[in-house]
Amino acid sequence: VRIVLVRPSDSANVGAAARAMKNMGLARLVVVEPPRWDEARAAARAVHAVDVLAARTVVATLAEAVAGAGLVVGTTGRPTAPEHDGAVPVRALAPLVVAAAATDEVAIVFGPEDHGLSNAELDRCQRVATIPTDPAYPSLNLAHAVMVVAYELRQAAGDAEPAGAPPADGPTLAPHERQEMLYARLEAGLRAVSFLHRDNAAHMMRALRHILGRAGLADHEVQILLGVARQMAWAGDRATRRGPN
Amino acid sequence: VRIVLVRPSDSANVGAAARAMKNMGLARLVVVEPPRWDEARAAARAVHAVDVLAARTVVATLAEAVAGAGLVVGTTGRPTAPEHDGAVPVRALAPLVVAAAATDEVAIVFGPEDHGLSNAELDRCQRVATIPTDPAYPSLNLAHAVMVVAYELRQAAGDAEPAGAPPADGPTLAPHERQEMLYARLEAGLRAVSFLHRDNAAHMMRALRHILGRAGLADHEVQILLGVARQMAWAGDRATRRGPN
Repeated sequence: VRIVLVRPSDSANVGAAARAMKNMGLARLVVVEPPRWDEARAAARAVHAVDVLAARTVVATLAEAVAGAGLVVGTTGRPTAPEHDGAVPVRALAPLVVAAAATDEVAIVFGPEDHGLSNAELDRCQRVATIPTDPAYPSLNLAHAVMVVAYELRQAAGDAEPAGAPPADGPTLAPHERQEMLYARLEAGLRAVSFLHRDNAAHMMRALRHILGRAGLADHEVQILLGVARQMAWAGDRATRRGPN
Repeated sequence: VRIVLVRPSDSANVGAAARAMKNMGLARLVVVEPPRWDEARAAARAVHAVDVLAARTVVATLAEAVAGAGLVVGTTGRPTAPEHDGAVPVRALAPLVVAAAATDEVAIVFGPEDHGLSNAELDRCQRVATIPTDPAYPSLNLAHAVMVVAYELRQAAGDAEPAGAPPADGPTLAPHERQEMLYARLEAGLRAVSFLHRDNAAHMMRALRHILGRAGLADHEVQILLGVARQMAWAGDRATRRGPN
């Protein structure tokens, strides 16, 4: 499991997040383009997790940060956003993450301190997790949020162990970039058959992402759906070349 | 429930703890004789929980801090200390704390950053809670520990409300017969765009059922996919009426 921090504004939070990760046995930290970096601030808060901090990967984009991940889980403090009514309490999602991590790369993505992940960024995530809070003050410190999520993962992993590690009969998930290619091809195919148009495209593609994200696509399933997209594009092109009927 | 911080050495941790408390709906903070106090450091980390911070009670001794409490829960990162092998994971203890808080004053006590509560202090507590960690780095930041405990209490309180909002994670699933109609329409649409043919139809429809079955379709999602099926049928019919190309 890798922890991805998108554009954290305060290096101290990155250090504190590294500490929380190591407390819970996580080691892979990825940071997307922090606007400013203060190594001393980060290291002071990492304390004995300076090794996790030092081993971090820094990348320019969210796409790079989640490359190769079969399951990408976004986090949000806005569980009521209508487009993301699929946000699930982290405790409910943790067993699924632990099971996926047994066979696949998993990325858990946290947004910047001020506004969290944008809706466009959440759209790139197959699942969206939220930490239930008091509505009077729902905004968690970034490192606190990492702490709770890492703690839930460790708890879920502990629950999973006594029964013996699941035999991982589930399908291996397709890498994130391949899933993104699928959505691009599906969108093109759905436009070709005149299902998508200017007014509904964003809404409909988001709905499809929710459906297929919940399903969790194996590589051979992506292959099948790519075939569907290809045939939609073929039929749509021929249908419209005929002109209106 | 009151949160008691015993001799915290860094005021920033007190502010961060106040924030974590307010995030989880707790408001009563008691601090035992901090050796140094830096209001600005504390307030900066409390952010919108400066009200919780400002309303804190400062006392000289642990005895004063827990006065009047019917249940005193200590916390420790040393679960293996032989004198306190009664330390219980906080998740297991949380329902008991919530139940006690319904009728009694409850105090949860956190020790100083460096060494935690002394054994003598733990002896004053009826129960001892611990946060399970990776043995490689068991020492949590003080505010992180408060965060996890406050989070567990909120989770336990939520579980205790049977009349509360239903789990309501996923949308209501579409009735079985409607899903069957969807598969029939999808099959027709996929034949129309020449994705399905005699040799692959059974295999491909089974794969689609697996994918969509895992997702669990809500009624409005069935509606969307019916739209996709309809447009595939439309485009496929037009495309093939043109004859081979």
